[in-house]
Amino acid sequence: MSTVQVDTPGGSYPIHIGAGRLDLLAQSIPDDATAIALVSNPTVDALYGQRVRAALEATGKRLIFIELPDGEAHKNWETLNLIFDGLLQNRLDRKAVLVALGGGVIGDMGGFAAASYMRGIRFVQVPTTLLSQVDSSVGGKTGINHPLGKNMVGAFYQPIAVEIDTDVLKTLPAREISAGLAEVIKYGLIIDADFFVWCEQNVDALRTLEPQAITYAIQRSCELKAYVVSQDERESGLRAILNFGHTFGHAIEAGLGYGAWLHGEAVGCGMVQAAELSALTMGLTSASVERVRALTQAIGCPVQPPDLGVDRWIELMQVDKKTEGGKLRFVLLPEIGQARFEAAEPDALRHVLEKTTIVQV
Amino acid sequence: MSTVQVDTPGGSYPIHIGAGRLDLLAQSIPDDATAIALVSNPTVDALYGQRVRAALEATGKRLIFIELPDGEAHKNWETLNLIFDGLLQNRLDRKAVLVALGGGVIGDMGGFAAASYMRGIRFVQVPTTLLSQVDSSVGGKTGINHPLGKNMVGAFYQPIAVEIDTDVLKTLPAREISAGLAEVIKYGLIIDADFFVWCEQNVDALRTLEPQAITYAIQRSCELKAYVVSQDERESGLRAILNFGHTFGHAIEAGLGYGAWLHGEAVGCGMVQAAELSALTMGLTSASVERVRALTQAIGCPVQPPDLGVDRWIELMQVDKKTEGGKLRFVLLPEIGQARFEAAEPDALRHVLEKTTIVQV
Repeated sequence: MSTVQVDTPGGSYPIHIGAGRLDLLAQSIPDDATAIALVSNPTVDALYGQRVRAALEATGKRLIFIELPDGEAHKNWETLNLIFDGLLQNRLDRKAVLVALGGGVIGDMGGFAAASYMRGIRFVQVPTTLLSQVDSSVGGKTGINHPLGKNMVGAFYQPIAVEIDTDVLKTLPAREISAGLAEVIKYGLIIDADFFVWCEQNVDALRTLEPQAITYAIQRSCELKAYVVSQDERESGLRAILNFGHTFGHAIEAGLGYGAWLHGEAVGCGMVQAAELSALTMGLTSASVERVRALTQAIGCPVQPPDLGVDRWIELMQVDKKTEGGKLRFVLLPEIGQARFEAAEPDALRHVLEKTTIVQV
Repeated sequence: MSTVQVDTPGGSYPIHIGAGRLDLLAQSIPDDATAIALVSNPTVDALYGQRVRAALEATGKRLIFIELPDGEAHKNWETLNLIFDGLLQNRLDRKAVLVALGGGVIGDMGGFAAASYMRGIRFVQVPTTLLSQVDSSVGGKTGINHPLGKNMVGAFYQPIAVEIDTDVLKTLPAREISAGLAEVIKYGLIIDADFFVWCEQNVDALRTLEPQAITYAIQRSCELKAYVVSQDERESGLRAILNFGHTFGHAIEAGLGYGAWLHGEAVGCGMVQAAELSALTMGLTSASVERVRALTQAIGCPVQPPDLGVDRWIELMQVDKKTEGGKLRFVLLPEIGQARFEAAEPDALRHVLEKTTIVQV
């Protein structure tokens, strides 16, 4: 078991990473908790609900279960309100603890419900997808979607602990492993060139979930994200670099309809596009662009963006939160392991979009 | 014009109090704001919308207006979502500023929308009722109601500035002035005996809105609340004393149906009940109880609680957030100007409830 300590102005907490952590969840419930609300979905509950209930019941505390429908399509107010209904119907008070067991959707909604219920109760995050383990378990971003945009309503809110059980990855589809690995290599690209090299050398072990490799990849990803977030909890500066590949990626998701590509797949492809834009505007070498493309492909993510049409691409990217006063900004790489958040030359952007959208998908 | 500076771990901001502040709102809009969203309701907008628009347009920034339906009955998710709709339809970004112009409902919803939109944008509070000027303008409490309870969903979120124009009180019904004054004398009761005496001596000037008296009352209320909140932003300790009278008051509001009594009226009556409970459990003198009753009556608030029945009273009070593990706790006064937050003896509580519920309302 390894532990990453996350320190932010909004709270400090440990991330425990290891095989079998689900059975030890009681360790993360504070003694003064008056009750525990377990929030999950039917898919995850069928796989791990029994073990998690047994682990939480070991605290001797009252345990209630709130089931949410599965999937990003339900990441909205109606579903969030199911959590509030459950908490209020069971009269849970301010000293209750919410445990979010599931992927990013459960984590984001469970976290936002915890942030908002009685203006804030404690919550423990138990991410069960690789993507949520390396991404949403650090940083305190919680929220729901709005018909006019993803993650438009939410809060920055820190859990009191994150429990990552690496065993649960064994039940994930290969496509979700690939999507999670896209975020893993992202950390190397933006801040740790050595880690990127390590990923290149261990790509097969990562895809087959070799225990030592996947544990290290999760740990290093959490450490790197924790470093960035500790510098900038509320996303006013450095933290923006975590969005490398995301402006393109969000446009892919929105343009094709959410769910067509997994978030990590869209980000993987978006990283290749962002690398190409970096070559045109930041002097990233073409050899480096090819390394980004090769590793993205090797982890099993698409590298050919869909043909949305240049104008639609730009329109979709303008909706993204990374505009300020309407100006399009991107995270770009002067070299592998370094990132800057800068406005892009419109001509260079068009060039990248035209070049990469010639193939119909 | 007087200024109260509020310092909390979640942010520091000034409260400006004076006649004509509405015309100077541009001073509270930061230079880097990309747009301004003015949130109000038809009643307030009809009275002050034109002046406020003119003041905000002086910044030269883009101004959008979001109108919410008037009243506590609309303090829910559907209405909150009107704000998100307006912000997103107009593509306001993270550097936009929300201005909440209205009473407590507008302030609570505008503040929660600002806290949640893109996980937090800046907001300026312009409270237009006496109650919201002395209560919700300090402390960062924002939120909406849930069918199962008031203010059950929300956030602690601080404005960047509060602008209190004392002129706007002239258009308030006398009943709302009385309700606001209940919260004013509450500050004296829980923390400043001298201020309570000052209120006793100036009750006529306060009810007639004599400018110097009402300005001082607002300023002193904000100072006292700011002192309490600065010690305890997230309501884990001292801040609980601000709820003096509120556990009884909330039961009155819920028991009679929200809106039958104004919040401040219910709190006023609740303070008299809490004083009676203090006499039984804390040794508050009966002379002091009579002073609480006399001043509450003098400001124009009811002092005779409605006959809800003892069991219903207790049931309603148990839903209140001030239970921990089901135990009923109250803010009680050992003497005027001092408060403690303690569990009440069930017998004493029943005695107070039986004594004061003999008259049908």
